[in-house]
Amino acid sequence: MAGELKLLGTLPSPFVYRVIWALKLKAIPYEFIEEDLTNKSPLLLKYNPVHKKIPVFLHGDKPVCESMIIVEYIDEVWPQNPLLPNDPYERALARFWVKFAEDKATSVWRMYRSKGEELEKTKKETLEMLQTVEEHGIGEKKFFGGDSIGIADIAFGSVVYWLEAIEEAVGGGAVFEAHRFPRLHAWIKKFKQVPVIKENLPERDWLVTFFKNRREALVRSA
Amino acid sequence: MAGELKLLGTLPSPFVYRVIWALKLKAIPYEFIEEDLTNKSPLLLKYNPVHKKIPVFLHGDKPVCESMIIVEYIDEVWPQNPLLPNDPYERALARFWVKFAEDKATSVWRMYRSKGEELEKTKKETLEMLQTVEEHGIGEKKFFGGDSIGIADIAFGSVVYWLEAIEEAVGGGAVFEAHRFPRLHAWIKKFKQVPVIKENLPERDWLVTFFKNRREALVRSA
Repeated sequence: MAGELKLLGTLPSPFVYRVIWALKLKAIPYEFIEEDLTNKSPLLLKYNPVHKKIPVFLHGDKPVCESMIIVEYIDEVWPQNPLLPNDPYERALARFWVKFAEDKATSVWRMYRSKGEELEKTKKETLEMLQTVEEHGIGEKKFFGGDSIGIADIAFGSVVYWLEAIEEAVGGGAVFEAHRFPRLHAWIKKFKQVPVIKENLPERDWLVTFFKNRREALVRSA
Repeated sequence: MAGELKLLGTLPSPFVYRVIWALKLKAIPYEFIEEDLTNKSPLLLKYNPVHKKIPVFLHGDKPVCESMIIVEYIDEVWPQNPLLPNDPYERALARFWVKFAEDKATSVWRMYRSKGEELEKTKKETLEMLQTVEEHGIGEKKFFGGDSIGIADIAFGSVVYWLEAIEEAVGGGAVFEAHRFPRLHAWIKKFKQVPVIKENLPERDWLVTFFKNRREALVRSA
């Protein structure tokens, strides 16, 4: 199976990790093809002509694009260790939080590229996003998906783990503070302890350094 | 069934029509509850506490929010006249275009509220969005979903039908020109001819007047 499954990506990308987690949680072997985003490969341009972005998941010669659509595709093709609930209403709720992560967490990805007023704006938006998830999203459950990791955990797992590194790289006061977000802090701790996740996370210090360097390069070229 | 299915919405909303089309295509009776967005009902605030937006679909006392998530929920609960294909890969492609409509068509909804430079920006973004769909999305098929209407047709149907009214209300040159977008023009014509769609479209002139009045009110208060 590994020969026919390929994942095009880069390793600091939170979107690529979403796909890696889905594949690893289902114990599906695949080949990882590292992309250089400063010099995109003909493979990437051929298989994601619309966005020209990673991740791209190749099933044989069929490309699937957009991280959360790839996760749902994987869940439909390989049903072991399901990532979406069976019940249509529970599925709609999971998809609601996935969409929320997709739409509202863009502030996190803008944060490391911003400074001054724009940086404060991304922090404020991130704070509001986290407050909504703390209040309405996670509740008293262990995971968004209940007792085990589901699709919304995968979506928010990348948001929160990357946020922790990005806010350290950016400096000037944390957004994701434990006393403000006790439920989300308890949840991300449990999330990171799941063996498959623990074994497939970029190292924290490496990620912080990566975003610090990216930030400096962007500020220099700005 | 009508007693237990309720749709909270307003009738100029393209997002509400997506849900109406899904329900009508499946011949599911429901009760429509008109919302006044200047004075949101306790029902809306209770059932969509996160976004406080329409549409909200109530199945008994279970609320589903976000138009395209509602459409997918309806398709899962009432499988007659399916809106998503059976094949997982075809489903992923349909979801790709739905996400594209959700992410990129925001320029259309910003257009009627903009003027000057910002208006030109929304027109340019809309043009690029349409070019991508013309080139990569619709192809030579009758509908995005093949021979019959599917979930991506529902997503883009509201975008394009509303765009035609909004650009008329805004004036200053059309974006959706037939010679630029021959495939999309052929597609929207077929879309509007489908009996269920034809019977459930807001009247064009009424929609133009609605957006003209909204626009004037917004410009006055700006």
